[in-house]
Amino acid sequence: MKLTKDGVTAAKGFWAASTAAGIKYTGRDDMALIVSDVPCRAAGVFTRNVVKAAPVVYDQRVTAAGSASAVVVNSGIANACTGVNGLMACEATAEKAGAALGIDPAQVLVASTGVIGLPLNMDKVKAGIDQLVQGLAQEKKQGADRLEGGHQAAKAIMTTDTHPKEVSVEFEVGGKKAVLGGMCKGSGMIHPNLGTMLCFLTTDAAIDQKLLQQALFDTVQETFNMVSVDRDTSTNDSVLLLANGLAGNPVITEKNQDYKAFEEALHTAALTLCKMIAGDGEGATALLQMDVVGAKTHDQAKVIAKSVITSNLVKTAIAGHDANWGRIICAMGYSGEDFDPSLVDLSFESKAGKVQIMENGTVLNYSEEEATKILSEQEIICTADLHLGNEKATAWGCDLTKQYVAINADYRS
Amino acid sequence: MKLTKDGVTAAKGFWAASTAAGIKYTGRDDMALIVSDVPCRAAGVFTRNVVKAAPVVYDQRVTAAGSASAVVVNSGIANACTGVNGLMACEATAEKAGAALGIDPAQVLVASTGVIGLPLNMDKVKAGIDQLVQGLAQEKKQGADRLEGGHQAAKAIMTTDTHPKEVSVEFEVGGKKAVLGGMCKGSGMIHPNLGTMLCFLTTDAAIDQKLLQQALFDTVQETFNMVSVDRDTSTNDSVLLLANGLAGNPVITEKNQDYKAFEEALHTAALTLCKMIAGDGEGATALLQMDVVGAKTHDQAKVIAKSVITSNLVKTAIAGHDANWGRIICAMGYSGEDFDPSLVDLSFESKAGKVQIMENGTVLNYSEEEATKILSEQEIICTADLHLGNEKATAWGCDLTKQYVAINADYRS
Repeated sequence: MKLTKDGVTAAKGFWAASTAAGIKYTGRDDMALIVSDVPCRAAGVFTRNVVKAAPVVYDQRVTAAGSASAVVVNSGIANACTGVNGLMACEATAEKAGAALGIDPAQVLVASTGVIGLPLNMDKVKAGIDQLVQGLAQEKKQGADRLEGGHQAAKAIMTTDTHPKEVSVEFEVGGKKAVLGGMCKGSGMIHPNLGTMLCFLTTDAAIDQKLLQQALFDTVQETFNMVSVDRDTSTNDSVLLLANGLAGNPVITEKNQDYKAFEEALHTAALTLCKMIAGDGEGATALLQMDVVGAKTHDQAKVIAKSVITSNLVKTAIAGHDANWGRIICAMGYSGEDFDPSLVDLSFESKAGKVQIMENGTVLNYSEEEATKILSEQEIICTADLHLGNEKATAWGCDLTKQYVAINADYRS
Repeated sequence: MKLTKDGVTAAKGFWAASTAAGIKYTGRDDMALIVSDVPCRAAGVFTRNVVKAAPVVYDQRVTAAGSASAVVVNSGIANACTGVNGLMACEATAEKAGAALGIDPAQVLVASTGVIGLPLNMDKVKAGIDQLVQGLAQEKKQGADRLEGGHQAAKAIMTTDTHPKEVSVEFEVGGKKAVLGGMCKGSGMIHPNLGTMLCFLTTDAAIDQKLLQQALFDTVQETFNMVSVDRDTSTNDSVLLLANGLAGNPVITEKNQDYKAFEEALHTAALTLCKMIAGDGEGATALLQMDVVGAKTHDQAKVIAKSVITSNLVKTAIAGHDANWGRIICAMGYSGEDFDPSLVDLSFESKAGKVQIMENGTVLNYSEEEATKILSEQEIICTADLHLGNEKATAWGCDLTKQYVAINADYRS
């Protein structure tokens, strides 16, 4: 398995384009298109928020049908809390893209991120689609590097992200080389009235749609669902996965070796994107990885790990490079899971070294200076061993800085 | 019923004193003592955090026995994560206070707030107790105003609080005038390594201990458990209630009219303190009250109200005086409770007026200017009507400011 940042067009037969449609931003691309040369099996996992944006409701229908060839994305207006008009905007978008691409509109997925409550200007969206499809035709005509279109698309879907987030994994399946690529943006609901984690994954591996959906669902539980910037679950969160089968492997139809290889590639790609998201949380200066080991059950480890990375007090301590173990053990304690505090070991680790803070629930005589050095790196791992069993889980978060408050309080005012 | 701020010694027979014991702070009082002239029926409600501070474990035993005459508090060291030594420190504190006051040590409750993980210096604690008891004797000898001792105690238990929090309620029960007074400090786990909401309530009403405990438990569910500054449940949270019976009313032994009068007084006192806590959250500039009405069940209303006041995005919006209804409906949506977004009405209200933002899930054409004016007050009420039933609930929170991050990140560094 080989990990690169080739992105959403790394797999055979996938193309992408972007354009400045003026949906909200000016002077930058804010629409993107992903297209496969052949129809794909499609899978999706969406926000659990009761308040679901129109594109989420729309894509749930498309992925339930199981097949798609294209995705149209805009990064200006979330199309959330827009009622029936919002759904009609999704339909009109698919209609227009289908016509422009010469494919069935039912094969078009749509995604949005941006301001909640505002209606999409459909004239701008339709003009944007024309530009995207024209751009794509030009790319193909000029024999352009397919990867370049993917890189541009990864930039076009950004909102408050400080850099594009791309990944690709090369793996072997059924004796064939296959590729799974992807891009994503955001992290939770990270911007004033802007929603959303959006993730687009593409693969040329051939795999049955039900297994594709299951692999995606299982992977999301351990990756995207273990990330939090601000505990605010957006109305638009979506992870879409398209598989066009162009790798030429025998179609994966059961949970065999090939399925495992595919799932491993998917997990690796999703994990890589997750860490990019957490590290690029609004105002964040550090990625915090929380490993809970020695748990009775996997669920116990998950709940405790998530409780730590979502604690404002833990997050501000990380911002202050402060080995504030009291806040970590406190956040573990109110997670809702039962454990014995007098058994817990706790340590911090980063490029700068490793320091154990607690053993059997008792604080050790560690060096504050060394701990601060370790906590001043951009990627910090905290490990808690519960000594109750052999299960473990990992969650990813970031620090909470004044910059986060500034970004989210000073909007409009 | 009459509401004042007379505090923890407002009820007959209760005395308080404070002293500078040098537990952590210098130049200010950091120990307090509450004593009743006669033994009290005692009730307590404590943190649900799995990691419980030693005084919490200790007081759980005392209140289970049901009787107490005194409380010793320090506001420097939390005595949490201190293992067996921590519990021994509680015992030694009760032992010393019992001897100094001439009462059974089993009648002494202890409470701590402050740094987690550090051991209490018992020499300082014991010297502090001597000073407290001497101070109290002097008070009595000089015929001092009992209220003054309570006011001083309310100051001595503060950590990052910007002002003392006191309350008292005068009510009638069984034909007698009774008083219920109290003081509290903090709000959640609000300070670097400092824990804790501590609340001390006293009353001269005569009431059976089981009913006292139940009234306290029920009241806490609707008051203290509906407050959040930072979603970080401390290791030390405690609400203690002492009833000495000196009002002379027939002992309340069943859930009759008298019980209702008592519960109403208790609820009023607790509610008043709660709002003081939320409004004085670290770095806070505004109190946010979230009313959820028209819910199917009371629990549904509670869960949704709490989800809103704990959202960092809602809290930063309030800091920015921004009527960011998208974040409120989003936080309602991820609360875990099911409702129909297309039925929701939403409005903001404060001293400066009232503005309706949403009707039947659709945003209205409200004035942003007017909304900003309403949201610039120190007490803001947001009401969401789910139109599903007749149940309702209220939660109290505060805004999230750069000052919160500064207080919690810049510690040690």
